[in-house]
Amino acid sequence: MIGAFGAMNAIGLVAFAVVGALKGADADLDLFGVGVLGMATALGGGILRDVLAGRVPVVLRTTSDVSVALVGVGIGVVLARAMGGRLRNHTAVQLPDAVGLAAFAATGALVGTDAGLSPFGVVVLATLTGVGGGSIADVLLGRVPAVLHEDFYATPAVLGGGAFWLATGIGVAAGQATLGCAAFVFALRLLALRYDWHLPTI
Amino acid sequence: MIGAFGAMNAIGLVAFAVVGALKGADADLDLFGVGVLGMATALGGGILRDVLAGRVPVVLRTTSDVSVALVGVGIGVVLARAMGGRLRNHTAVQLPDAVGLAAFAATGALVGTDAGLSPFGVVVLATLTGVGGGSIADVLLGRVPAVLHEDFYATPAVLGGGAFWLATGIGVAAGQATLGCAAFVFALRLLALRYDWHLPTI
Amino acid sequence: MIGAFGAMNAIGLVAFAVVGALKGADADLDLFGVGVLGMATALGGGILRDVLAGRVPVVLRTTSDVSVALVGVGIGVVLARAMGGRLRNHTAVQLPDAVGLAAFAATGALVGTDAGLSPFGVVVLATLTGVGGGSIADVLLGRVPAVLHEDFYATPAVLGGGAFWLATGIGVAAGQATLGCAAFVFALRLLALRYDWHLPTI
Repeated sequence: MIGAFGAMNAIGLVAFAVVGALKGADADLDLFGVGVLGMATALGGGILRDVLAGRVPVVLRTTSDVSVALVGVGIGVVLARAMGGRLRNHTAVQLPDAVGLAAFAATGALVGTDAGLSPFGVVVLATLTGVGGGSIADVLLGRVPAVLHEDFYATPAVLGGGAFWLATGIGVAAGQATLGCAAFVFALRLLALRYDWHLPTI
Repeated sequence: MIGAFGAMNAIGLVAFAVVGALKGADADLDLFGVGVLGMATALGGGILRDVLAGRVPVVLRTTSDVSVALVGVGIGVVLARAMGGRLRNHTAVQLPDAVGLAAFAATGALVGTDAGLSPFGVVVLATLTGVGGGSIADVLLGRVPAVLHEDFYATPAVLGGGAFWLATGIGVAAGQATLGCAAFVFALRLLALRYDWHLPTI
Repeated sequence: MIGAFGAMNAIGLVAFAVVGALKGADADLDLFGVGVLGMATALGGGILRDVLAGRVPVVLRTTSDVSVALVGVGIGVVLARAMGGRLRNHTAVQLPDAVGLAAFAATGALVGTDAGLSPFGVVVLATLTGVGGGSIADVLLGRVPAVLHEDFYATPAVLGGGAFWLATGIGVAAGQATLGCAAFVFALRLLALRYDWHLPTI
């Protein structure tokens, strides 16, 4: 179980650090601003997850998490240099963003279940963990977060949190449910991007 | 006492979910964005309250709170359809907003007192609980929160938190003080709207 | 040790309350908005620090902290009246801002060490405590926080957090390390402002 948490947490940290660094470069921030935005995107969701579950953020208790996020920022900086501008809505951002969303949503569902939250609490925590870091980054840049105008951004995390809760409820081991949840969220998000899925408008 | 907390908490959740959904519809968000904004407005203040008081948010521990907020979002969606656009500063938004402000400020005062906060701590928690959800929603929409430019928005919550602390200090039961605090905040806010009350400018 | 924490905490509260009030006056907020922004700037960093370290915010547990912040807001209001507009990037804002950054970063490093965080956790907490209040104020005003576009704003706090951790690691008493950390951050920030230091851009 620790294995599944650690793996998904590390994958989410790297993926979101890359996304945040690319977003920062796209917004013409200088190197430090790119680093700050990368770190905020990477660490934001996990900090929110742990504070809401009533524990000191794992990122502050370990040395590994910040290191892993810094590696992701470095990858993002190299990618940004290689690609030049025009990164928004580019696959190089959307793909790691989907990876981060899926990995972090799965850790949120796992931590929520461990903390004895209600089913709805597990879904809310999975969703907030998945979308939290990116939303913080968008707010810092003065943008309306993607979660408000891309309907199939939070939806996969909501469904993934529900699926995790159902799976553990019928006896699936937590580690397997975590990996399954991440795969499910990732697939849903990719399909939404590929086929331009939308919910009905009011 | 649980009765007063539960009642004010539920009223605040529904009222702010309606407000958030109407704000989202007014900002031309699609159905999912409207739902997200409604949930953020409804859940934001209570999550802030519980995290600051050092406890796992009640909304994550129960199934009822998310359900109640979803009902509020549904009411908001129906209202938005019925009313069309032009919702900002409309009575249909201001009235439930005053209800939510009053109900949540009262829960903040109660939770702060239970957590053994100082008098000023009780006032700060009442205020943050009352204005938190709406401020999060405004920030997500890229707007300057009402609390910064409408002076008699936070003021009723500040005064209500102080009144709650005074009342419990002279022996009023917590449940009665909670209801009294909510009624006081609601009346002040309505009077401020009706008579266009303002604090002096610098 | 409590002495060093109390002193740095109080200095940070007053300094950031002044900064927030001046920022609010510069943004043409009315008196109440100025007060709210001053309080948000003053209390934001410390609340973030304590919540992340897993404790109820000291500002909510004491009466002194809110009082001290209110004094700072009062000073800021008097200063704003005396100076008129055109306050952004003025020394009267930058100087107390450097004081607040230094004092709060030091409290963040101390609280992080007390909470048994990892070295990186101490650095992250020092940084978030130092830049948190000002960033919240900037977001509320709809501005991109200084931390994203002024590279030597967060950097002094990062280096100060690292220096604190090194100092306590080689046996310097926590109280002395706190004062030394604050002096170090303050000096770095002043030098960055005076000599217009910048990190390389991508």
